[in-house]
Amino acid sequence: MRNRFDRQLEQLNNELIQMGSMIEHAIEMAVSALVNQDTEKAKEAMAYDVEIDHQERDIESLCMKLLLQQQPVARDLRLISAALKMITDMERIGDHAGDISEMTLLMSDEPYIISPEEIQGMAKETTDMVIKSIDAFVKRDMELAKKVIAQDDVVDDLFMKVKQDLIQMINKSAENGEQAADILMVAKYFERIGDHATNIAEWVIYSITGSHID
Amino acid sequence: MRNRFDRQLEQLNNELIQMGSMIEHAIEMAVSALVNQDTEKAKEAMAYDVEIDHQERDIESLCMKLLLQQQPVARDLRLISAALKMITDMERIGDHAGDISEMTLLMSDEPYIISPEEIQGMAKETTDMVIKSIDAFVKRDMELAKKVIAQDDVVDDLFMKVKQDLIQMINKSAENGEQAADILMVAKYFERIGDHATNIAEWVIYSITGSHID
Repeated sequence: MRNRFDRQLEQLNNELIQMGSMIEHAIEMAVSALVNQDTEKAKEAMAYDVEIDHQERDIESLCMKLLLQQQPVARDLRLISAALKMITDMERIGDHAGDISEMTLLMSDEPYIISPEEIQGMAKETTDMVIKSIDAFVKRDMELAKKVIAQDDVVDDLFMKVKQDLIQMINKSAENGEQAADILMVAKYFERIGDHATNIAEWVIYSITGSHID
Repeated sequence: MRNRFDRQLEQLNNELIQMGSMIEHAIEMAVSALVNQDTEKAKEAMAYDVEIDHQERDIESLCMKLLLQQQPVARDLRLISAALKMITDMERIGDHAGDISEMTLLMSDEPYIISPEEIQGMAKETTDMVIKSIDAFVKRDMELAKKVIAQDDVVDDLFMKVKQDLIQMINKSAENGEQAADILMVAKYFERIGDHATNIAEWVIYSITGSHID
């Protein structure tokens, strides 16, 4: 029985890694579509969200099966509960990639007056957080998880900077106001992606230590 | 068997109505907290999200049980699939009530320079959409569902107006920029609540006609 359980835990790990690469891919598509005003890719990123949702359901079923059939205790129980919580955050990240693409479609008619450079900075930082947080889970790496949590401050600072810059921009000329407001939403979505990566890292720590830091 | 199935469908209906009143309550709390800068109520609204999530899980389990045990076809199958999709949208509405409360906490330190009147208009309209969309499901009312879908244009127009007003406001004085940007996010969350109510109405039509309008 134990052997089968181990194999199932291994499978859970692999499915989580798979979902991790899916959301990485989703963010990459969303960023590329945003930067290049590529409406086709934006639509692709939005459609891809369905696949991420399926993956979430699959992992959820696997976790439920493990909980019901194996009635795990202590560390294994924590691991499976953490996985269940993590996939919600991962799925939300996928949602936000779709949200960003929705804004890309909205902004596709006019050339960017505002350089998306700062946004790319946020994108880079949050993608890095997402990759690290899943890596931390797979390797049961407390230190890496803590790094992700600390990194969220960088993303929050970037968001504050983008926000201030956009406010200044609108203040100078209302003409670019519409686009600035839309870019602000995009920045907010990236900030939320950072929050969800932080949540994932917190679940990693919970799965190792059994206590949830906030 | 049929009788038991009918009772279970009845239970599904009741659980959906229950989840409907929960999200209504969540929006009400979020709006009241926002308007009165009531940080305690904002925290309450954020915590309440957990209960909505539980309700979603309960309904999901019930739907799965119905699908597996009863293997429904045609109209019943559509009804249960629609319920499964609807609860995702309902849960997202609950999330957005939490998101709005997060912004309320962020804005709690300074008095409002901007009157939240327009936001209250959006809140009123979207709450109305949410109530109607669930009502449409319960009563299998196509016409009501179509009304909700049409009503989304009103919300979108309100959002565009709020957005333009906030842009003008920032353009006049950068001093209020921070608050204006935060209010813009709140407006966006209400707009998304309207989108989710529209989705629910579309699922209602699907459950009746078997085809999904977009």
